[in-house]
Amino acid sequence: MGKISSVSPFAPAALVKLPPIEGVTFATAEAGIRYKKRTDLLLAVLAKGTTVAGVLTQSQTASAPVLACRKHLKKGNARALVVNSGNANAFTGRKGHEAVEITVDHAVEAVGCKAHEVFVASTGVIGEPLDADKFAHLLGSLAKRAKPDAFESAARAIMTTDTYPKLATRTALIGDTEVTINGFCKGAGMIAPDMATMLCFIFTDAALPADVLQDLLAEHVRTTFNCMTVDGDTSTSDTCLVFATGAAAARGQISVTRSSSKKLKPFSQALHDLMRDLAIQVAKDGEGLSKFVTFEVEDAKTWHAARRIALACANSPILKTAIAGEDPNWGRVVMAVGKSGEAADRDKLTIWFGPYCVARDGERAIEYDEKTVAAYMKNREIVIRVSVGVGKAAATVWTCDLTHDYVSINADYRS
Amino acid sequence: MGKISSVSPFAPAALVKLPPIEGVTFATAEAGIRYKKRTDLLLAVLAKGTTVAGVLTQSQTASAPVLACRKHLKKGNARALVVNSGNANAFTGRKGHEAVEITVDHAVEAVGCKAHEVFVASTGVIGEPLDADKFAHLLGSLAKRAKPDAFESAARAIMTTDTYPKLATRTALIGDTEVTINGFCKGAGMIAPDMATMLCFIFTDAALPADVLQDLLAEHVRTTFNCMTVDGDTSTSDTCLVFATGAAAARGQISVTRSSSKKLKPFSQALHDLMRDLAIQVAKDGEGLSKFVTFEVEDAKTWHAARRIALACANSPILKTAIAGEDPNWGRVVMAVGKSGEAADRDKLTIWFGPYCVARDGERAIEYDEKTVAAYMKNREIVIRVSVGVGKAAATVWTCDLTHDYVSINADYRS
Repeated sequence: MGKISSVSPFAPAALVKLPPIEGVTFATAEAGIRYKKRTDLLLAVLAKGTTVAGVLTQSQTASAPVLACRKHLKKGNARALVVNSGNANAFTGRKGHEAVEITVDHAVEAVGCKAHEVFVASTGVIGEPLDADKFAHLLGSLAKRAKPDAFESAARAIMTTDTYPKLATRTALIGDTEVTINGFCKGAGMIAPDMATMLCFIFTDAALPADVLQDLLAEHVRTTFNCMTVDGDTSTSDTCLVFATGAAAARGQISVTRSSSKKLKPFSQALHDLMRDLAIQVAKDGEGLSKFVTFEVEDAKTWHAARRIALACANSPILKTAIAGEDPNWGRVVMAVGKSGEAADRDKLTIWFGPYCVARDGERAIEYDEKTVAAYMKNREIVIRVSVGVGKAAATVWTCDLTHDYVSINADYRS
Repeated sequence: MGKISSVSPFAPAALVKLPPIEGVTFATAEAGIRYKKRTDLLLAVLAKGTTVAGVLTQSQTASAPVLACRKHLKKGNARALVVNSGNANAFTGRKGHEAVEITVDHAVEAVGCKAHEVFVASTGVIGEPLDADKFAHLLGSLAKRAKPDAFESAARAIMTTDTYPKLATRTALIGDTEVTINGFCKGAGMIAPDMATMLCFIFTDAALPADVLQDLLAEHVRTTFNCMTVDGDTSTSDTCLVFATGAAAARGQISVTRSSSKKLKPFSQALHDLMRDLAIQVAKDGEGLSKFVTFEVEDAKTWHAARRIALACANSPILKTAIAGEDPNWGRVVMAVGKSGEAADRDKLTIWFGPYCVARDGERAIEYDEKTVAAYMKNREIVIRVSVGVGKAAATVWTCDLTHDYVSINADYRS
């Protein structure tokens, strides 16, 4: 067994600094739920009037917190977010729902809100009962000491096997008013689309109705978090929530009531950009990775087909392992395209590794030079482009390679 | 990187000895296609009147030999089988078809038959042009020295990353006449269902029309080779052919014209049993494996649903890695069931690791004892049983764990 790198080679040298967002404060604690000597509990307190939208896992075995979020999202208002790491409170039966209830009750008291305004998320081991009494009593003091300038510590408290906190910030104009969007997320293994693929929390001071927020989130999840995979595994806990405090209204932000409004274009673009940034950060912290890999599929029949072909590549163990070995084994790309089940014209299939065309029109490219492409494979970031020759649609999927460290990390996760 | 075991821990101490089958002879050669100092070319010569049936890969990027087999199968007669290892002749464009034509031409001359009576299969690297001139001229001398008692050497000539040849034999009565069924196959990586998942060649002296043979093969592939996976990857070359020489007719075998005939029951059962045996042998030689794993899914809505849930488990990298680490991480079974997309009742889900119930009715079983189940995980053969609580259908899938050696083997395959 190799020595596991303690940090992803893609960990940023310096973390991006997120500005405060009016109406959002955070506090964290070391509750000792599973980890020792690190924070594992996060409370976000949100101003009155905050709207919320969310996209949750499509797993048939969703966790108790996911079920609670799904219920609370129907009302569209949020005042508190409670997240714990170390235990996913998934597959914990009646006890799981009780743990959520205890958490919500304490948050209601701490923040002074209604139960449906509390959102909860848990991440970590599946199947272990979560003892909410261990941490719920801390929420009162956390609410008292919650501070706006604490995005990084918030992001750190929700980490599990992540090797760095994932943070992003953008600004956009709605009418003439500048609003800020901040987001952070966690996720490194058990990462695949269908749906949301990790915990992600996004905050903005924009004033937007919950249904508008929901439309934008659902649209952008499709091409960001749903186009990113580490191991093709879908978590029971995947949760992506967006909170809009509405503080920008006091600064004169115009009101927007439809997600299709032209006035929302810059905001929508900034939100997409931020979500894409976070999705790529997750892929770049894929468990045990040595390389970040982008699959670009072109000339497919539909976007869905292009995405499915790209995912077939991105989830192929034998292809991901070849990439880890810096082997330009493009035959395995042919295999993955073939197994996707989507239409492809074998005799028009063209494949590029970075700038190099390795196969054209169904056979090895004349100019293919193994040494050149093998040298390209030594890069940390690999782009593989495939034209399947049956249409005009394209999709991009981000992933990482499959290494010895992935095996080490996941063979030893609980022990 | 760990040292790669040279042989699967499941390699048989002694290979099963296959009896000759009247009308089938083999010869092999060291053609030097890719490997050095080992056989890599097989010719099987089949008696006049031999019928043939086949199931081939569903890949959209099927190899040139697969396309040729698909065409030749329409006629239902076979006189020769030519297999090479080291090069899959897949994604080789026009040159690929030419290589098949050259091979077929030489086989036609060597055996004295028609082109559509020649079947070809190639396995190995994808995308490298196969130089048929390197070996096709050998077929004449191979035909001259072909012998009946050579199943083991035939099985060895078609191996790639296999660590042992996979052989099986059965007998059955058709009416009062005993017939023999022999089979061998290769496959260790890039193994998944949809369809046939490897090269497999089955020979019998039974006298059966091609369409009857085809019905039986298609039926049994479903629950044998299509319920086995190593890495979820579908090869461009998967080929499973059955040849029936009809020699048993001279020994008085009754004629059978419908696959549904009661008289075929024992033969059909023996064929199923042989194919199941070979499928399990492939899973037991999964690249780099340390454990053989059986997933049994019960109480699903349909057999298809049960199979898909079992495959979601068997193809989950994070679950397979936990098994390699001897970690009874049943939460990952919950995750895999959830991600399959098939109906499951979270609150009725029950999971067993071997004889131990680890979860019942949607939460950890009261009697669950981590130490006991962790001790069970030290076994070489692991059985995980899941009741999903929504119906009465069941399916079994065979696979192996995901180890450091899998990564080593596939990172270094070509270099």
